[in-house]
Amino acid sequence: MLTESQIAEYRSEGFLLLDGVFDADEIAALRNEVTDLYATDHPGRIFEEDGTTVRGIHGCHTTGALFSRLVRLPELLSAAEELLDSKVHVFQCKVNAKQALRGEVWQWHQDYSVWEHKDGMPQPRAVNAAVFLDDATEHNGPLLVVPGSHRNDAIAPWRPGPEGAAQWENDLSAKLEFALDADQMAEVTADSEIRSVVGRAGSLLFFHPCIAHGSGANMSPADRTMAFVSYNSVDNELREVPRPRPEFVASRDYRPLEFVDGGLIA
Amino acid sequence: MLTESQIAEYRSEGFLLLDGVFDADEIAALRNEVTDLYATDHPGRIFEEDGTTVRGIHGCHTTGALFSRLVRLPELLSAAEELLDSKVHVFQCKVNAKQALRGEVWQWHQDYSVWEHKDGMPQPRAVNAAVFLDDATEHNGPLLVVPGSHRNDAIAPWRPGPEGAAQWENDLSAKLEFALDADQMAEVTADSEIRSVVGRAGSLLFFHPCIAHGSGANMSPADRTMAFVSYNSVDNELREVPRPRPEFVASRDYRPLEFVDGGLIA
Repeated sequence: MLTESQIAEYRSEGFLLLDGVFDADEIAALRNEVTDLYATDHPGRIFEEDGTTVRGIHGCHTTGALFSRLVRLPELLSAAEELLDSKVHVFQCKVNAKQALRGEVWQWHQDYSVWEHKDGMPQPRAVNAAVFLDDATEHNGPLLVVPGSHRNDAIAPWRPGPEGAAQWENDLSAKLEFALDADQMAEVTADSEIRSVVGRAGSLLFFHPCIAHGSGANMSPADRTMAFVSYNSVDNELREVPRPRPEFVASRDYRPLEFVDGGLIA
Repeated sequence: MLTESQIAEYRSEGFLLLDGVFDADEIAALRNEVTDLYATDHPGRIFEEDGTTVRGIHGCHTTGALFSRLVRLPELLSAAEELLDSKVHVFQCKVNAKQALRGEVWQWHQDYSVWEHKDGMPQPRAVNAAVFLDDATEHNGPLLVVPGSHRNDAIAPWRPGPEGAAQWENDLSAKLEFALDADQMAEVTADSEIRSVVGRAGSLLFFHPCIAHGSGANMSPADRTMAFVSYNSVDNELREVPRPRPEFVASRDYRPLEFVDGGLIA
């Protein structure tokens, strides 16, 4: 699926943005399914601090029919296999809602910092694929990245949080316990910069589990919905951990994913 | 102080940005005074939701020697008199801290919406002058404006908040009771756009009390400190209101301001 220069760009920058991968009908269909999932009671549905605005939906490849197809499309799956040189499984699948004027911050973090410590992931042999379900603009809380920061050895030090069965929810809120602090961000940006990943609905973004990323509040009257699929190599099985996070946040189903034919809307 | 074309730009756009008004020594001196004010216990010192990060300092023209001079400098005072065609007094003087990674959102609002309803200001015969004490970049929570929105008749409807002596603090937090909602912002931006007011430390910005403005979270490891002076025409005395806000938030000292000579650092 990917050209050699695209793969080289991903390895160098830690992310790769492809425009126009999904058409308006496909995006509209996914948005409809997202609307249904927002209205469905499920433990993977997370709210903003106001307690009423949906912040995210987790595990949607198991609860949404279209998302179940999405994760198996060659556009995502084949590219993930190429980038990881391996068969893969879906480790996470989620929707970040980032609703108009209400969507809150995702603090700066590196995914692998969490996955290693919370989920026992042995190596960062994983890749995120993000589908833009709305235009992402400078002002609706676009994903922010620091290009090249996945090559930085300084994975954020682990700061254990409060104990308890609901602890996994702390990792999905606007106050992350594994956030990068100002000193770490100053170091990470010393030889790089903060970049807004803006793009049209239908764009597809791949980004590395070690890249420093986050997003600001949505300051616009337009939603910035984004779907994320985190693929993990089937050779990178999670270690046993004392309190594993729920299956819909960190899946231990390592069966290799198989493609579906015929596009998103069969 | 201002040229005819600058005044015309202000009247048309609702804001006017001037680069390089203050030099590095002047900005450093103001930053030093700000650091002192952050450490000084005063009811005008407001914290972010975390309760420890300073969000703002109010009334600093009465508590800071340099700020007392700043508000009387021709660069600010004479321009304000020109824009309002009147002698003026300081209605508000404050510092917005917007500290690195911790500075939170200011929701979209129109100043005059508050000043009219809370403070009894008869007309929007006022102007804000903002001094950039740090570089304001796309990612450290720059002021956001909707150009031309001061000409919109739709001042946000008033939604009364909870009663109580500390009510004025609600107007200075990350959750504004008079915030513009998504429908209002969609209307305001229909014929315009959201614009980030980025600029170097030492810049001076004038903006209209009716312009829609706000700012996102600071997502960078650099502070975005900004000082605001709100000048009101001395002919625009506040009406009596049931529960006036403190003098350091809404001053009723209508004595016309007189210039100081010799610059900020005498």
